[in-house]
Amino acid sequence: MYSKGQQAHTMSKIHSLRKTHLPVAQNASGRNLNVPVYHIKGSQPGPRVYIQSSIHGAEVQGNVVIYHLLQQLQDQAICGEIVLVPNCNPVGTNIKAGEYTLGRFDPVNGTNWNRGYYYDEQAVHRFADTVSADDSTDAIKTAFRQYQADHIAEKLANPWGLGLAQQLNLRLQQMAVDADIVLDLHNGPVSTRHIYIPDYARHAAMDFNIPHCIFIPNVFAGALDEACFCPWWTLTDALRDRLGVEHNFSVEAFTLEMGSQEVIHFGEGRIDAHSILAYLNRRGVLADCEITPDSMTRVGVSLSDYKTLYTDWGGMVEYLARPGDVVQKGQPLANILNIDELDNARGHQQLLAPCDLIPILHFPSASVLSGTQLYKVFTHYHTLSE
Amino acid sequence: MYSKGQQAHTMSKIHSLRKTHLPVAQNASGRNLNVPVYHIKGSQPGPRVYIQSSIHGAEVQGNVVIYHLLQQLQDQAICGEIVLVPNCNPVGTNIKAGEYTLGRFDPVNGTNWNRGYYYDEQAVHRFADTVSADDSTDAIKTAFRQYQADHIAEKLANPWGLGLAQQLNLRLQQMAVDADIVLDLHNGPVSTRHIYIPDYARHAAMDFNIPHCIFIPNVFAGALDEACFCPWWTLTDALRDRLGVEHNFSVEAFTLEMGSQEVIHFGEGRIDAHSILAYLNRRGVLADCEITPDSMTRVGVSLSDYKTLYTDWGGMVEYLARPGDVVQKGQPLANILNIDELDNARGHQQLLAPCDLIPILHFPSASVLSGTQLYKVFTHYHTLSE
Amino acid sequence: MYSKGQQAHTMSKIHSLRKTHLPVAQNASGRNLNVPVYHIKGSQPGPRVYIQSSIHGAEVQGNVVIYHLLQQLQDQAICGEIVLVPNCNPVGTNIKAGEYTLGRFDPVNGTNWNRGYYYDEQAVHRFADTVSADDSTDAIKTAFRQYQADHIAEKLANPWGLGLAQQLNLRLQQMAVDADIVLDLHNGPVSTRHIYIPDYARHAAMDFNIPHCIFIPNVFAGALDEACFCPWWTLTDALRDRLGVEHNFSVEAFTLEMGSQEVIHFGEGRIDAHSILAYLNRRGVLADCEITPDSMTRVGVSLSDYKTLYTDWGGMVEYLARPGDVVQKGQPLANILNIDELDNARGHQQLLAPCDLIPILHFPSASVLSGTQLYKVFTHYHTLSE
Amino acid sequence: MYSKGQQAHTMSKIHSLRKTHLPVAQNASGRNLNVPVYHIKGSQPGPRVYIQSSIHGAEVQGNVVIYHLLQQLQDQAICGEIVLVPNCNPVGTNIKAGEYTLGRFDPVNGTNWNRGYYYDEQAVHRFADTVSADDSTDAIKTAFRQYQADHIAEKLANPWGLGLAQQLNLRLQQMAVDADIVLDLHNGPVSTRHIYIPDYARHAAMDFNIPHCIFIPNVFAGALDEACFCPWWTLTDALRDRLGVEHNFSVEAFTLEMGSQEVIHFGEGRIDAHSILAYLNRRGVLADCEITPDSMTRVGVSLSDYKTLYTDWGGMVEYLARPGDVVQKGQPLANILNIDELDNARGHQQLLAPCDLIPILHFPSASVLSGTQLYKVFTHYHTLSE
Repeated sequence: MYSKGQQAHTMSKIHSLRKTHLPVAQNASGRNLNVPVYHIKGSQPGPRVYIQSSIHGAEVQGNVVIYHLLQQLQDQAICGEIVLVPNCNPVGTNIKAGEYTLGRFDPVNGTNWNRGYYYDEQAVHRFADTVSADDSTDAIKTAFRQYQADHIAEKLANPWGLGLAQQLNLRLQQMAVDADIVLDLHNGPVSTRHIYIPDYARHAAMDFNIPHCIFIPNVFAGALDEACFCPWWTLTDALRDRLGVEHNFSVEAFTLEMGSQEVIHFGEGRIDAHSILAYLNRRGVLADCEITPDSMTRVGVSLSDYKTLYTDWGGMVEYLARPGDVVQKGQPLANILNIDELDNARGHQQLLAPCDLIPILHFPSASVLSGTQLYKVFTHYHTLSE
Repeated sequence: MYSKGQQAHTMSKIHSLRKTHLPVAQNASGRNLNVPVYHIKGSQPGPRVYIQSSIHGAEVQGNVVIYHLLQQLQDQAICGEIVLVPNCNPVGTNIKAGEYTLGRFDPVNGTNWNRGYYYDEQAVHRFADTVSADDSTDAIKTAFRQYQADHIAEKLANPWGLGLAQQLNLRLQQMAVDADIVLDLHNGPVSTRHIYIPDYARHAAMDFNIPHCIFIPNVFAGALDEACFCPWWTLTDALRDRLGVEHNFSVEAFTLEMGSQEVIHFGEGRIDAHSILAYLNRRGVLADCEITPDSMTRVGVSLSDYKTLYTDWGGMVEYLARPGDVVQKGQPLANILNIDELDNARGHQQLLAPCDLIPILHFPSASVLSGTQLYKVFTHYHTLSE
Repeated sequence: MYSKGQQAHTMSKIHSLRKTHLPVAQNASGRNLNVPVYHIKGSQPGPRVYIQSSIHGAEVQGNVVIYHLLQQLQDQAICGEIVLVPNCNPVGTNIKAGEYTLGRFDPVNGTNWNRGYYYDEQAVHRFADTVSADDSTDAIKTAFRQYQADHIAEKLANPWGLGLAQQLNLRLQQMAVDADIVLDLHNGPVSTRHIYIPDYARHAAMDFNIPHCIFIPNVFAGALDEACFCPWWTLTDALRDRLGVEHNFSVEAFTLEMGSQEVIHFGEGRIDAHSILAYLNRRGVLADCEITPDSMTRVGVSLSDYKTLYTDWGGMVEYLARPGDVVQKGQPLANILNIDELDNARGHQQLLAPCDLIPILHFPSASVLSGTQLYKVFTHYHTLSE
Repeated sequence: MYSKGQQAHTMSKIHSLRKTHLPVAQNASGRNLNVPVYHIKGSQPGPRVYIQSSIHGAEVQGNVVIYHLLQQLQDQAICGEIVLVPNCNPVGTNIKAGEYTLGRFDPVNGTNWNRGYYYDEQAVHRFADTVSADDSTDAIKTAFRQYQADHIAEKLANPWGLGLAQQLNLRLQQMAVDADIVLDLHNGPVSTRHIYIPDYARHAAMDFNIPHCIFIPNVFAGALDEACFCPWWTLTDALRDRLGVEHNFSVEAFTLEMGSQEVIHFGEGRIDAHSILAYLNRRGVLADCEITPDSMTRVGVSLSDYKTLYTDWGGMVEYLARPGDVVQKGQPLANILNIDELDNARGHQQLLAPCDLIPILHFPSASVLSGTQLYKVFTHYHTLSE
């Protein structure tokens, strides 16, 4: 007993849609594991956009967001190109351990699926040495893209090979390296919506409908957004230092956290897609589009004020403070049950907020060992305004 | 920053509380794994009650229920004895696979932790052959308990040994075998509260505050409730057949499903404990207690009408029908996303209810393979009345 | 740097080879998971043979055996048909947990991949009721095959669906149900070669080159071999009982355990394939073939004498007795290390053989909990002779 | 049926042995997880030695080595102190996934258990700034130890807490930080014995009986050996640079890989322990001891020549080249089976050595995905001589 939820997607007159499949891995049966790639080519020139979802296999809401983007883009006139890659990790999506998806790391060796992208700071400086003061921004941009693409291709051609996560990451990055705009769609464990924004592009906080914003420095820790913005940020700084010239390469990359893992929700996905359209419209990707960011309260923190609260005890936990709540110092965050102490007061204790904070996400299981990331929280946060 | 959630539990004048620890397994470090056992001894004679929780390691709410039982029993005068065993599976509780608890089966061999209890139908018949028409119910009860305890001890003493799950189950059953009332506290994946009731004790449905009741036949599939009621049910039938005598041994055993796994909730646990007290009060365990079952709507089904809806496709799922909802045939149960078909109508389909039903639980992850238990549902259900 | 290990397989004049792929499941990406099926059609009439391997995903040696069967059958004139299904569980093969393959059970729910085949004893009796005394063996055989195939198809068409393991099993059984000879290729954990033989076909022990033989009764526990021989055994008995007629349906099914899991070995696979050819030749599958079973020592036991030795302690183990060794009562089986007792004599103990035995397999890890299947052993075994 | 394998360990007159237990974590049951610590105090002054094993839970042979060290040290007169910590990771040891131990990384988040030790290069330089040219080596050593211990204690006291692996690592490091000699006992997957040696202490290669030696630079990647030697190496360099003084702090730290994981072997453990005693004797830990390193062939490589060979295909593998073999370029390393191609030459291919090499370890399962660490090999190796 099935019904189709939506009209079939008809080919738009104002842009073209093409679907391909890219092999990114091979399983023990010797079979290719592919990612679907949806290419939208606008009828007018404009930015190149790259959007992927589910590099962490249990973080699936982004797939629904891409579904809705494809629906909502049907009627839009597009300037430039948009490449959409849902479910970009066919290995991580399909590793079950119990009823849940063990999607955050390679089950063979623990490697986080989002830490193997390419960035080489020294290579950026070597490139900067080749730039002249009179080179145009466009010429530099074209040359630097090729330079990065060559390095990624070279890594992939390593005669000794590469680990699975890194192979996967680099093949995806080959599609992202040409983009002006890169959006990597994630989820937290149990989480409110939030976004990581490179500090140089902090104005972008006002362009999405996402209430919680984390501003991050020019530091590479392996993730796609960093791999996409660090080179351009570093190059911009290097050219300013070397040549005294200010180039604006207009490349932005963000990690969007679309709520909680292990869950898809079509209704929220429609809203998330709308938020992304508002941003894309501000960047000139949509012609004759009226979608603008909502007027809403947004709060921001520096990455150094985005704290992880680890347990130094094991036990069972009721999460009292919900993601997005405003919590004052001393208010309860969690109830803790200790099953060996049910006959005395240690059987039930409360964990209190060590300072004013907003919980952004919490651990998704009641059962925690010592050293568990119980909550990640905003501290010293501030309200953002245009 | 911690606070104590509750006053220390003071020793009651009207009963005594004792805590022991029972070793049930040994880990690879060679160390004992213990379960905590809380023994409450009433000041008056009465039934023996055995309550355990978390034999499935991720089903942790029962631990909170036992916490509240200990709190709420403080002020009660108890007739008989109550043995409370929270977190009765120290292996299953502590197996993490990703952030979740792989608590349903032994990770070594897949054995369900709730399928290794002892019941031997033929042994019941052999015992029945030894009973005379003039034996009193009490005498038979005492002798049969010893008979069963001897068989369990014999199994545990098997010179070739036993599997881990079975060892654990039998050690717990050694505590349960003497009880008149056995409650095994479980959770579903994402679940509303429901209870399994042996058909011969279907009146008990009105004694708990649990809205969904499944009536089960005299069939043993390995679980604790069955292992506790099948012998007495079979013995009662056998003595009626053999001797034409009707004995009422007043032994009841139930599996209570207290909502969803991976979650504890103190507020709901207080209500769950209250429901159990209402039942215990009706069975004469509490003296001078005014707690009675709530007046509420309860629906019931035969086990054969409690259906599992399996997928014959893989994909990503939004669960539209929530546990406890009344759903008509043809109404949507779930949205299904297929990431390879986002450019056509197969990208989003809806699964419709094949008949009138009430979903009781659903799979806890959006990502499903073919052959997944998507929903368990009541069909042909009816409202219960006293 | 790769070389081809073998000449390309050229199409034989004396039989034809065809390859197809059968979808048996769908993953969370919504993609079909297929098994490869190699069909060999002889130029002469003869028995139908069905051989599968790796229903337990980590038991991979059978795939090499099938590779060698395909090589060695190239030059044989075949009577009848042979269907070869390597790697018949594409889900189990591809579930990694750490470096090993979690291939024995469904990681979602613990269901053993080899326990969901179809057999219904009552249905056999209902069929037997329809047989007349003057029906020919061939006619009965044809009708009973269709009868079983219909039941399997009906189960697969269950409107509420089926679990993944059962779906997989039944789709494979649809290919096996027509066969006269069914071989299911498995491995033990760390294991010597052994074979399960239905007691009515115990003469077959001399037809394979497998040193250790377990004779099993007409009991169904869910495995493929049982699902294939129990119906015919039961039918034969039922027709004898009902009609006093002795039919020989010439259907045989065996589980072959080809050494240890997690390992493939081409050299041993060649020998294993040769052993299977000797058996097939004795059954008339090969024309003008000179391959005969080896003259070798074979020992056998009844299933009830094939014992599992479980631990009642946890610790770290050195396996002293190797699979296939002849061990006397009191000889050491294993060294046990307890890391908390290295300063006293309990730090190192030895486990001694409780009786004369031959270890057939042992647990593959040094780290064991209580309740671990440490060894499976032959007791009261005897040497077989023609 | 058990026998004691060894005489009870009697207290020696020439040193004292004390056993304690250190809590390093707490599980979801709220219970402490402890490591056993064996302290041997010599009757004469001498170096401090710290030896731990099994930080990766499946790498258990080191526990047997520590067992034999305790046996063999019974009769030795010890100068200084020896702290032995077997099974130092009670979490990792006890996580089963199937029959194997998922011991290499935290199952919750993938964190490698051997990457969370403390080292802060800048802190070393800050300390170096406080040293005067006339400070004695001993005074500097004492002060620097305290300095490091203070930093580790400060990290552990982080008010936001720390992850489980890091907590565990730092608690172990608190015991190691005072040592002059640190040995961290590991195993490879399927592996020959090898050792990681800091380049400044490369002479130590001749002091163990370990045939394969990897010389590593002053780079910290999180492991215990690096965390122990990098500070002293950096400090030595810094003081030479700043003050022109050459201090020899006589601190050495090594990772010893004692063969294959998932296996213990008492006979080889006795040999391994003897090898460690030879080293300790050379360092003055044993008085009146005649044990010297064996005369044997040892080969060495720089870390940059210790290569990992990753697959760029998935399939099933027979490992032809065994750990320790000398393999020439073009010789076969592995047979590869592709189950979809058994009817053509792609069904069986061989992987050939891309250069002259010695395999040191290989993947422990036949089933590999693309991006698997198939082999780790010595290239450009050389024979070592005194």
